[in-house]
Amino acid sequence: MSKILISNVKYFKPSGEVETANISIQNDKFEKISAEPVDKKNFDTVIDGCGKFAVPGFVNAHTHASMTLLRSYSDDKSLMDWLQKDIWPIEEKMRRKDIRAGAELAAIEMIKSGTTAFADMYGPSMEEVAQVVETSGLRGVLCRGIIGFANGDEKLATNVELYKNWHGKADGRITVMFGPHAIYTCPPEFLKKVYAEAEKLGAEIHIHMNETQTEISDCIKNYGKRPFEVVAETGLFDLGTLAAHCVWLSDSEIEIIKSKKIRVAHNPGSNMKLASGIAPVPKLLQENICVGLGTDGASSNNNLDMLEEIKLAALLHKVDTLNPLAIPAAEALKLGTEYGAKAVGLKNTGKIEVGYKADLTLFDMQGVEWQPNYNPVSLLVYSANSASAETVIVDGKILMQNRELKTLDEEKILADFKACANQLTGKE
Amino acid sequence: MSKILISNVKYFKPSGEVETANISIQNDKFEKISAEPVDKKNFDTVIDGCGKFAVPGFVNAHTHASMTLLRSYSDDKSLMDWLQKDIWPIEEKMRRKDIRAGAELAAIEMIKSGTTAFADMYGPSMEEVAQVVETSGLRGVLCRGIIGFANGDEKLATNVELYKNWHGKADGRITVMFGPHAIYTCPPEFLKKVYAEAEKLGAEIHIHMNETQTEISDCIKNYGKRPFEVVAETGLFDLGTLAAHCVWLSDSEIEIIKSKKIRVAHNPGSNMKLASGIAPVPKLLQENICVGLGTDGASSNNNLDMLEEIKLAALLHKVDTLNPLAIPAAEALKLGTEYGAKAVGLKNTGKIEVGYKADLTLFDMQGVEWQPNYNPVSLLVYSANSASAETVIVDGKILMQNRELKTLDEEKILADFKACANQLTGKE
Repeated sequence: MSKILISNVKYFKPSGEVETANISIQNDKFEKISAEPVDKKNFDTVIDGCGKFAVPGFVNAHTHASMTLLRSYSDDKSLMDWLQKDIWPIEEKMRRKDIRAGAELAAIEMIKSGTTAFADMYGPSMEEVAQVVETSGLRGVLCRGIIGFANGDEKLATNVELYKNWHGKADGRITVMFGPHAIYTCPPEFLKKVYAEAEKLGAEIHIHMNETQTEISDCIKNYGKRPFEVVAETGLFDLGTLAAHCVWLSDSEIEIIKSKKIRVAHNPGSNMKLASGIAPVPKLLQENICVGLGTDGASSNNNLDMLEEIKLAALLHKVDTLNPLAIPAAEALKLGTEYGAKAVGLKNTGKIEVGYKADLTLFDMQGVEWQPNYNPVSLLVYSANSASAETVIVDGKILMQNRELKTLDEEKILADFKACANQLTGKE
Repeated sequence: MSKILISNVKYFKPSGEVETANISIQNDKFEKISAEPVDKKNFDTVIDGCGKFAVPGFVNAHTHASMTLLRSYSDDKSLMDWLQKDIWPIEEKMRRKDIRAGAELAAIEMIKSGTTAFADMYGPSMEEVAQVVETSGLRGVLCRGIIGFANGDEKLATNVELYKNWHGKADGRITVMFGPHAIYTCPPEFLKKVYAEAEKLGAEIHIHMNETQTEISDCIKNYGKRPFEVVAETGLFDLGTLAAHCVWLSDSEIEIIKSKKIRVAHNPGSNMKLASGIAPVPKLLQENICVGLGTDGASSNNNLDMLEEIKLAALLHKVDTLNPLAIPAAEALKLGTEYGAKAVGLKNTGKIEVGYKADLTLFDMQGVEWQPNYNPVSLLVYSANSASAETVIVDGKILMQNRELKTLDEEKILADFKACANQLTGKE
């Protein structure tokens, strides 16, 4: 039995308020959260929480971790130039060791910026990502991103394998979903095959939906209906779905999202950088739709820093709706934590609450950007950056303390990563 | 004579490209920038630039430095509630020592995030800010923010005093402008008085223009014309003008901006947080209008981090225009450096170029968010945060090296600041 105490710490309550408490963690769960004095002798590890701000660990609800390898490889191009001329050709060359190296660097980057869980979709060799989840101590919701057109059945089979080999593994920190990439890469007949396989296993779905206007007009041209309408008819949404992007939505599609209880991964940074558009997040929240936040891959963001997404979500929807109350700081923080955990299908995760999974990030509030300190939530969301993330705990285990990584060898991973990048691109 | 060498460093060229060079600084200017070998013995200080990225120091083209004191004091309110119920009443209570403490903390925050110059507008006691500029080594473009309604003449007189006492001081690092606050706080008759005083001294103008839709509809109601049209008639724009915000502009106002060579301070973070609107920056740039970037005050941002503004400018206008090429990374970086320096009226500043003022920030590129490193400009703008700012030089003097401040006593300033905040608000 492992017991951790974080003493005398300000923490983000599920109510959105901030209170000072002693937080006791036993094994993988929050055991007690209270202002009452505690006997430090009863704990294996005591972390002094004075001057720190404890928030639920960030949940990155949509990413492609291994794409860290393509960070800064191609930017500031039109979407199709970017994908067709730069990203897809280099992705073709990526091998198992590249997937591994990219995911390892991503794990470091996520832990150092306060993320404790991520929903990942990528091509072949997703078992490499699963191994990185196991080693790093992070929580991972993984799927094989399946392009249905070419060898779709083979790819689908690898997603089945991934599920059988990894679902529920790493002390339950790994969930496996099925990852049909999008309606423009997976025809409805193929989605029905995905449905059949996932349904047999009881697996959920992670899919890109309605990211660009072109995607929607193409769908209407090809199938006579909008994407959510076409996919709904395949049965796929009956399995439980995490839908990434959801930028351009008709009212009838919002009705489908509600009735099928689809959870949305909003990616403000990527949607801004690729000029995809602005998702109607305040409206979705008003409709009680579950919305989490994601970074998308590091080639369209260009980092995995969830605090930036939280800030962007708070700012972007204010200016888009011309309403300064559109997404207040506490709501933005919940998008990146509590709602994100729900969005990616994690149970009892995403809140600092007794009985919940002990996934937590401590921010150091000593920097000048935290002064004066009238409201830690507003300071975290609007003023701080992720360099203040100091200690990260997942499932009751310390992954980083005082910015020192406990589970990963940063120096070795960085060296391997640079070698892979160099070999892959011939640049640098 | 002081000589600094930054050896073997990647730097941002005025062309927007990145090259490796040895950068020699003599006294206040870049003396030589070349890949040729140099003899280190000829320098008083040698900084190893390997693994670093040198960019012109950021220019914060619009801020209210002392408002750091109100950071996190009031957020997520409607604009008028925020101003009238929270900000203005507490500002009434601010005294000389508060202005000083706020500006000192701001100076630390700016240096630590890579800013070398700032254009500041605030209420009484601006000479305290001038003293902080002198001590800190920053470059300051200062004005008294004048509300013309109440005791306007007295306030105008303090701006005249500020000009006489401080313009050109601190080895030329201080410029003084005149700061009529806005058309909704300064009637045209009062602006004519400002014009007369500033014209006598040859001073330029720093003013808020067209920040909100209400401001414009009020102006039309009161004066029958839009703000730029009303102000143009007072003569004020003939003096040289830095106009902050410029969110809502008619075509005829853009014509006034062009013909009067008005420079714009764009504040994406503040405009987003207060839900003011999105300034038509790509259009202004197409019209060859000079646009810099500002943070605005720390109570509407909530920090003074120019790298965030650079990133926001790059992202916001892409999604607003649905054009991923709207503001590329190099252009965004120029908004925060070269164009900003022009916007605030600094001569020979804002570029790493021989003969220019030696104002420069070195970013450390060792962090995982800088890997792989195919394009330092894209990494700085889209991936890094300001915690990578490592060394800051202004006017050929080192203000920070390896994140250690050389001109300011961080511990003492922080203690004084906390005491002031505590006394001012009775909170914390």
